[in-house]
Amino acid sequence: MIPEDMKLISVDDHVIEHGTVWKDRVPSRFRDRAPHVVEKDEDKQVWIYEGREYPSLGLDASVGRDVEDFRLEPRRYTDMRPGCYDPKERVKDMDADGVWAQTPFPSFPRFCGQTFLEADDRELALLCVRAYNDFILDEWCAAAPGRFIPVAIVPLWDPQLAAEEAFRVAEKGARAISFSENPSALGLPSWWSGEWGPLFAAAEDTDMPLCLHFGSSSVMQQPSPESPFILPIALAALNSMATVADLIFSPIFRDHPKLKVAISEGGIGWMPYVLERCNWVWSRHRYYEEIDYSVRPSDIFREHIWGCFITDDSGLKARDTIGVQNIMWECDYPHSDSVWPNSRPTLERSFEHANVDSDEARLIAENNARQLFNWPG
Amino acid sequence: MIPEDMKLISVDDHVIEHGTVWKDRVPSRFRDRAPHVVEKDEDKQVWIYEGREYPSLGLDASVGRDVEDFRLEPRRYTDMRPGCYDPKERVKDMDADGVWAQTPFPSFPRFCGQTFLEADDRELALLCVRAYNDFILDEWCAAAPGRFIPVAIVPLWDPQLAAEEAFRVAEKGARAISFSENPSALGLPSWWSGEWGPLFAAAEDTDMPLCLHFGSSSVMQQPSPESPFILPIALAALNSMATVADLIFSPIFRDHPKLKVAISEGGIGWMPYVLERCNWVWSRHRYYEEIDYSVRPSDIFREHIWGCFITDDSGLKARDTIGVQNIMWECDYPHSDSVWPNSRPTLERSFEHANVDSDEARLIAENNARQLFNWPG
Repeated sequence: MIPEDMKLISVDDHVIEHGTVWKDRVPSRFRDRAPHVVEKDEDKQVWIYEGREYPSLGLDASVGRDVEDFRLEPRRYTDMRPGCYDPKERVKDMDADGVWAQTPFPSFPRFCGQTFLEADDRELALLCVRAYNDFILDEWCAAAPGRFIPVAIVPLWDPQLAAEEAFRVAEKGARAISFSENPSALGLPSWWSGEWGPLFAAAEDTDMPLCLHFGSSSVMQQPSPESPFILPIALAALNSMATVADLIFSPIFRDHPKLKVAISEGGIGWMPYVLERCNWVWSRHRYYEEIDYSVRPSDIFREHIWGCFITDDSGLKARDTIGVQNIMWECDYPHSDSVWPNSRPTLERSFEHANVDSDEARLIAENNARQLFNWPG
Repeated sequence: MIPEDMKLISVDDHVIEHGTVWKDRVPSRFRDRAPHVVEKDEDKQVWIYEGREYPSLGLDASVGRDVEDFRLEPRRYTDMRPGCYDPKERVKDMDADGVWAQTPFPSFPRFCGQTFLEADDRELALLCVRAYNDFILDEWCAAAPGRFIPVAIVPLWDPQLAAEEAFRVAEKGARAISFSENPSALGLPSWWSGEWGPLFAAAEDTDMPLCLHFGSSSVMQQPSPESPFILPIALAALNSMATVADLIFSPIFRDHPKLKVAISEGGIGWMPYVLERCNWVWSRHRYYEEIDYSVRPSDIFREHIWGCFITDDSGLKARDTIGVQNIMWECDYPHSDSVWPNSRPTLERSFEHANVDSDEARLIAENNARQLFNWPG
């Protein structure tokens, strides 16, 4: 049951950046190479960055469309609901949906800023990372105080620079860092490398969780060459599962005991299986390997990792195994998984199916997020 | 509760082939290049095939050891329990474990015969596939009638030859074909290709399920380069998850309505999440893609796919969502996940944790397997 006075906090949503986010902010000598939007053919707009073209994905702005009208093709801004790119309009859509606060992730930079990692000019890329963070803090979130929990990105190519940016944005009010679910898949040092110490220490010092959005490794689950796009959509959480296991067995949480991680858009229904499986292999295979002998994987999880769901009856039914304290809710506006403007009745039905009482509902859909993101009511 | 008169049927176990399985069976001109065992250094034995060395894995023959003594290094036959390679000794170990029947998978050929797919000489490779099947049928399973459910392999490189071998072994009493969980990962045509028609039609005609063992795609889940071996062990079922989704969305079960698939050693606790997720994306993303518009993914699953577990409380608790008819039990003798000689009390505890009653227990640990594998009591 969702109490009527409950303010829903969504922990995974997406901003479609307007066309001048970067041109407005980088020094004039970089303006031509900074990301900007141009007309392409007759009917679409594309991003241009360092002379390269970046198409957008229709599903990323499908909110408000019937599922029969979902398409993969890129669109124009005028094809989107204004709530995709305009924070004042977004708040109206949140009000229509009965959602109090959202947690916006980037689109053009990709989930954790991979676009800037892949850029040729690192000086410009760093300016672009900072420009995005200034946009999300000073423009988007500032447009409606209390309604947007600011998530920042960092320069992925340098742990020290990343730490510096984390401190800078924390000072300005950021509440979380969107990082990669698997840095080694991006060609960066892995969880096991010890290289990320400065960033993780910064996250601990500033009490910001790392948000690891599925797809932030740039890996898509494509079982067969001919598998249609529904397969990577259906299987995206496999990345999250591998991340949770790799994190738990790695030394990270021993080295950074205050580090917190949110598995963004990963779902929760698989967590009981993955934790049980990790406990099982730990009980049998820890004697010949360099892993933590002393703490059970599921205990590490409870202390350090949070999951979230849109609809996930199997996860809610198993909430005691996952930990009610470790579960949050997300809206995913304006992506294709969002049920906007029916978030509240949809969540209500999920809670009913799983016999979630109002105290648990308040934890799952509001207070766990308030605590993790330091977002008092 | 396990009724006392219940005969446990395990649907996933492993034979360690003795050293002359192939030399005993191939024509004399092939004998030097056929797989055979030689002494290596002072303390180990290795397989040689076409002049190449194939090490074995200690964990594959760890039965009877304390978990503290698990090792990855290869061993000698004399280091193993004789039940690993001797069917009469195996039956004694099954009796000690309270297990009536086992379903043996190959070791040197790998789960579905990938070793022979990778061989240079296809003529010899086909002879080796047939030699393995003759060994498992005429020597291993014949040693204890009723106690071993014969699983055969096929020449993976040719769907027509594979179909012919399926018909040949069915005639000799085989009850299942061990096939790849993801043929495209082996460089073969995918589930979507339509190329496997002859083999799938043979499986339908002979009423043999395809057993897709985790790892039979030769893919290991290795999240980071430095992740220790416990990660691929913990995450092996991610392959099974991708297989289930890819199969369900592919046209295979429309084209082959009597085809049955067992997900071998894949666990079951993830199935509620994966099926719920597949239903969800199907409800939203089937309008712009070439997939089945008419049948819900979970309904396809119920009709065509079976899972199994060793210990899996989360899966047993969610058995109504998976389908009690679709769940089987496995012992995994002599691999490192097996709890031999404590299969029966371990399973009893699992059933207690999940409040499985004796009727359900009889389905899960005996009768579902009897039905799927045509193995009357």
